[in-house]
Amino acid sequence: MGSASLESFLQQRRAELSCDAVVVSDTGMPDADHPALTYSLRGIIAFELALHGPSRDLHSGIFGGAVDNPAMALSQLLARVRGKNGRIVIPGFYDGVAPLSAYERRELKRLPLSDRKLQQLLGVKKLFGERGFTPTEQRSARPTFEINGLTSGYQGEGSKTIVPAWARAKITCRLVPHQKPARVRKVVCDYLRKICPPTVRLEIEAGHGAEAYLVSPQSPQAQAALRALREDFQREPVLLREGGSIPIVNEFKRVLGADTLLLGLGLPEDNAHSPNEKFDLDCFANGQRTSALLWRELTQPAK
Amino acid sequence: MGSASLESFLQQRRAELSCDAVVVSDTGMPDADHPALTYSLRGIIAFELALHGPSRDLHSGIFGGAVDNPAMALSQLLARVRGKNGRIVIPGFYDGVAPLSAYERRELKRLPLSDRKLQQLLGVKKLFGERGFTPTEQRSARPTFEINGLTSGYQGEGSKTIVPAWARAKITCRLVPHQKPARVRKVVCDYLRKICPPTVRLEIEAGHGAEAYLVSPQSPQAQAALRALREDFQREPVLLREGGSIPIVNEFKRVLGADTLLLGLGLPEDNAHSPNEKFDLDCFANGQRTSALLWRELTQPAK
Repeated sequence: MGSASLESFLQQRRAELSCDAVVVSDTGMPDADHPALTYSLRGIIAFELALHGPSRDLHSGIFGGAVDNPAMALSQLLARVRGKNGRIVIPGFYDGVAPLSAYERRELKRLPLSDRKLQQLLGVKKLFGERGFTPTEQRSARPTFEINGLTSGYQGEGSKTIVPAWARAKITCRLVPHQKPARVRKVVCDYLRKICPPTVRLEIEAGHGAEAYLVSPQSPQAQAALRALREDFQREPVLLREGGSIPIVNEFKRVLGADTLLLGLGLPEDNAHSPNEKFDLDCFANGQRTSALLWRELTQPAK
Repeated sequence: MGSASLESFLQQRRAELSCDAVVVSDTGMPDADHPALTYSLRGIIAFELALHGPSRDLHSGIFGGAVDNPAMALSQLLARVRGKNGRIVIPGFYDGVAPLSAYERRELKRLPLSDRKLQQLLGVKKLFGERGFTPTEQRSARPTFEINGLTSGYQGEGSKTIVPAWARAKITCRLVPHQKPARVRKVVCDYLRKICPPTVRLEIEAGHGAEAYLVSPQSPQAQAALRALREDFQREPVLLREGGSIPIVNEFKRVLGADTLLLGLGLPEDNAHSPNEKFDLDCFANGQRTSALLWRELTQPAK
């Protein structure tokens, strides 16, 4: 829910929580054989749109045709956010987005999850994303505008012949390094207000927001984590950009001055945020061993 | 719900139900001072669209950006149904629509409900409908494509960062005389299937359907009804086209061979199909008197 009270908690307990680094195990690995250190997270802004039409649900026979339908107005509003090539067409939406370096694009290509496997994992006939980027890049290093929920009118069995009084959409945008949440929120809201027709009233409720996170995998702590992973898995760890958001890590950096090691062992098929979310027992065992090795490596000078 | 069992009931009881005319009091009058006889009803087709995307709700951070969002795909699909001028852009949608005669347009203009009063009644800042027609014409003599409900993803408090597995829309189209429900259903479904992107799977569930109704206000029964209204209200009745649908009347005509007198006393502010639906007690009293007068007039030869 955005952890609104965490920052003040950190401020109050600052001395007690003083540390060299934070370890968070809320990220993943590309598959059970590839240990991974995550060096970037996407940020987020959340908000909810409400389009208000008539003062009550109306009989769609008696009045339908002479009054705008908020569910149609909402569809038309949302439809104008994303272009056919998968790009968000809101002016200024991509301002400041850090481009992917050639090195990062090469590294991301090395990941063992093929497009075909990803497609099977998600159960879709066809992947879809911003043209010019691979699926791995689209879901980790590019911003998104995602509808998380739609609600309007009648939702029960069968039909009910109404023009709904209102329509709502829950939205979250994922942000990438160097996008400012407040600025993205502003360009999105300005655009939606500008294209909203005069036949409905647009209300926007702001939710939580967090910047993206990007940290060097060359730090002594990161190097210690990579050694621990290498020793436990007997395999070279991969470096990951994670598409999800962990807003807490920005607070750790700002309040405690500490970088976060994102050392997670979730698998793509763990159904994160989906029904039947799970955590693999082998990954649990690996996590225990890696953690033990990490404490040892953190006390050793880099080789 | 479309009264699926009514036709077979009428067939079974045909002899018992044999009659010269049917009286249905499920229509309205423009205001409490203007008695009305309705001579036309709009027809209807109902259906539900489902767009299926990933096999489950997905984490919008881990996967968002590389997979189409069914709620966005649905918005873009629905957005392409209605043009800026309020016309439905589905090819063939208006085929066969009976044009309004100059006489009808003049009669409809005489109704006492002004655009300003309608706007206030509905609680909107601005009316909206198909260009080239008055609001009265739009809501009684022109077909519509109306979204009755939208459902997708998370609908509770706050936010949930998912790409929904599916998105659904409940739709009804109002039809006008000479449109064939089966044909309109076909052109609508064909269009939606044609424009549906390959990244989601479209499923269309058909609901009920009914033709529009149009009957002469010159029949002996209609004339008797007009005399009854005139005598009770001491005022010249108006002739109405009703935007709503009463599918039953088509069954009465087909099975019993009887036309229906649509002699209703609902007021525009009765909140039909809305919360707090009501029926005015004065209208109830007028209905009793008019009904008594109608039985007398039906037995008298036309003057």
